[in-house]
Amino acid sequence: MDIVNPSILSGFMELLPDEQKLFDEIKLTIEKNFIKYGFVNLDTPLIEKEEILLSKGGGETSKQIYRIDKESTPQALRFDLTVSLARYVAMHANELNFPFRRYQIGKVYRGERNQKGRYREFYQCDIDIIGNEKLDIVNDGEIPSVIYNIFSDLGLGEVTFRVNNRKLLNGYLELISVSDFESIMRTIDKLPKIGIEKTKLELEKFGLNSLQITQIFDFINLTELENTEILDKLLKIEISNDSYSEGLGELVKVYEYMKMFGIPEKNIKIDLTITRGLDYYTGTVFETFLNGYESIGSVCSGGRYDNLASNFTKQKYPGIGLSIGLTRLFYQLNDSKLLKKQEKTVSHNILVIPMNEEVLDYSIEVVNLLRNNDINSQIYLETVKTKKKFNYADKMGIKNAIIIGETEKQNNTVSLKNFDNGNQEELKLENLVEILNGGKYEN
Amino acid sequence: MDIVNPSILSGFMELLPDEQKLFDEIKLTIEKNFIKYGFVNLDTPLIEKEEILLSKGGGETSKQIYRIDKESTPQALRFDLTVSLARYVAMHANELNFPFRRYQIGKVYRGERNQKGRYREFYQCDIDIIGNEKLDIVNDGEIPSVIYNIFSDLGLGEVTFRVNNRKLLNGYLELISVSDFESIMRTIDKLPKIGIEKTKLELEKFGLNSLQITQIFDFINLTELENTEILDKLLKIEISNDSYSEGLGELVKVYEYMKMFGIPEKNIKIDLTITRGLDYYTGTVFETFLNGYESIGSVCSGGRYDNLASNFTKQKYPGIGLSIGLTRLFYQLNDSKLLKKQEKTVSHNILVIPMNEEVLDYSIEVVNLLRNNDINSQIYLETVKTKKKFNYADKMGIKNAIIIGETEKQNNTVSLKNFDNGNQEELKLENLVEILNGGKYEN
Repeated sequence: MDIVNPSILSGFMELLPDEQKLFDEIKLTIEKNFIKYGFVNLDTPLIEKEEILLSKGGGETSKQIYRIDKESTPQALRFDLTVSLARYVAMHANELNFPFRRYQIGKVYRGERNQKGRYREFYQCDIDIIGNEKLDIVNDGEIPSVIYNIFSDLGLGEVTFRVNNRKLLNGYLELISVSDFESIMRTIDKLPKIGIEKTKLELEKFGLNSLQITQIFDFINLTELENTEILDKLLKIEISNDSYSEGLGELVKVYEYMKMFGIPEKNIKIDLTITRGLDYYTGTVFETFLNGYESIGSVCSGGRYDNLASNFTKQKYPGIGLSIGLTRLFYQLNDSKLLKKQEKTVSHNILVIPMNEEVLDYSIEVVNLLRNNDINSQIYLETVKTKKKFNYADKMGIKNAIIIGETEKQNNTVSLKNFDNGNQEELKLENLVEILNGGKYEN
Repeated sequence: MDIVNPSILSGFMELLPDEQKLFDEIKLTIEKNFIKYGFVNLDTPLIEKEEILLSKGGGETSKQIYRIDKESTPQALRFDLTVSLARYVAMHANELNFPFRRYQIGKVYRGERNQKGRYREFYQCDIDIIGNEKLDIVNDGEIPSVIYNIFSDLGLGEVTFRVNNRKLLNGYLELISVSDFESIMRTIDKLPKIGIEKTKLELEKFGLNSLQITQIFDFINLTELENTEILDKLLKIEISNDSYSEGLGELVKVYEYMKMFGIPEKNIKIDLTITRGLDYYTGTVFETFLNGYESIGSVCSGGRYDNLASNFTKQKYPGIGLSIGLTRLFYQLNDSKLLKKQEKTVSHNILVIPMNEEVLDYSIEVVNLLRNNDINSQIYLETVKTKKKFNYADKMGIKNAIIIGETEKQNNTVSLKNFDNGNQEELKLENLVEILNGGKYEN
């Protein structure tokens, strides 16, 4: 038979078991927090009808999607979890309980150009709260607190939430008689990347005069002040614009609620340059940065949208959501040496090692006992030299082994060996579970 | 904007939150047991190169796969987890620790004809133990014990493992001078579906004489006896065939090891009609049935294979694996009313209900306190009538709510309400966590 070279497609992440374990721990921490905060899981199909995925119109998305080659209904892999959420809410609205707090952790697909740290298959971890017709602004303050707790639990250091409100910026642009909001906002969004001078040039291209450009910079430069000073200054700007005053009112509230939900003041930064995806968000917008590692970009982004499912129903579903791009985050953490990687991943399993075939029956009894008491454990079943059995334990990062020879079988005991310090102790089988659960033997 | 009718493709399972919760509980039970038995997780890409997926040759698989419409490398969605495991082992063998015990729970795709209970996207939950060059037969006895424990934990009633050995049947067919093993085995495999008479007719078509047909039925009819009787009779058949004696030796051992690993005798049935996928398994084969619900088919199947990665490497990797088709299983359990479905799924969350805006700050303090103590909880943040807040709790199946009005805020207390019995009790805030954790209030 022909041998096919074993390989995977480029742009796909595949981990070795030790790395996979670290990845899974992060994923689990995220999921546990989502559940703790009262979000319920959804697991929608990875393949959706193309008319659903592209209901917002084609553009960049249309070029990047993974189409399925079927003669039947045009279909493709989802490129985010939000379109599926919108479709789900519109489809099942009568059976859902609003505000609908859902989380979803799943893979999405984008045929992006190959580059370091960018993947074509990647996990998104989303939380959203969806209201029926309306949703209180206090939700905008609660949702980042979930993310704050996730990063606290991960022990990756401090995060800063950069928060803004789209209405505020819209309103300000109206006040200074600028009309082409979308282009201007897209330009402002690029400021950290392209710098002040290029930003000014771009704004000029859109026909802004030098007064308007100065006014825009006066506005976004407020970001350099303390949060309370920013809000003070914003309140003092002559308010004759509904969008501006509504946006400012919301920003003040979101800032207060975030603190109320336990995010320390020092981890919040009002940032008037944050605008996010322009055709989607309508109010509060967030980006989240790891302090000291801002260069890796936002690790969690999202915001408020007025109308989740406008492509699928005339009913209005406003919502607020945040999303962690887990695959990219994992890559970045690894690349920045931020993963709490021990020299060797520690396995929390106990390895039962029978010294020969004669003690196999008794050894199986022992591993059954452990498993029946919910102690993660495995048994080495191959007939090889003792050294090879110990090598296996070493490579797996196993700390404790139970070694069983004929003496142990005869005495109804086991020998518990700690690979860290080399200690070995003979214990009565009847005491084994109690001793392992007693915390004396840290697994 | 045009409204697109929100819908999903046929042949895909999508659940409402209550059902999703039941599904997730089953999935978690499966995963917890995999981990408890010392299996490590893999998470391979859903898209593989077509040359990898079809390395075994096309046939039925080739017709059913979901091809991706990309101009670059031909690629498609995986149709099972085994091909990816084989590719992974061949690719990373030098970095793996053998015996390699891996589990994987993931979605796979097959463009099957639409029919009740068959899905085109479905979860497989696989465990495999892979050896390098060799793997002891005792592993064949351990691996079903994982599945036994999963079904015990699920509380779905008893399961029966039907076990056979391919070598035994091969050897017997050789003994009675039958040569076309594959066709004969495929026919025997269909026996439960097509019945004795049709099976005989089919065997005749393959050119078997009546003596051979009688011999085959004499052999597989042994299945009706007790396990020990079957083994007794098999041992008495004149053994002049290596495959037969090797297969029988293995079957005897697997039967003994299964019991040693804690599967009761009554849950094991040696079944000489079980043959499984013909081009894949080479020794032990398993099917698993829910007692009393045999008609829903095997809920977990698998077996021993000599050479996992023969398409990708010349190195030999024998293995033993079992797979649960979770999506189909969930459908069947639901359809057979076997899911432990309460009238209403119980939510383990505590719902904090602020009675008005004035107590919102204090209510947020309370929910922060619960979450900081790892108590799953949420807060109702919308400004609506009290009745609507209570309705939300009811629909979510929430058992306990913390109700906060001005009295509670002033007294630094909360009112804990149990929706089951209607009791309400005012508690000091400082005692709340202890009381909730104390087990008096079952969540």
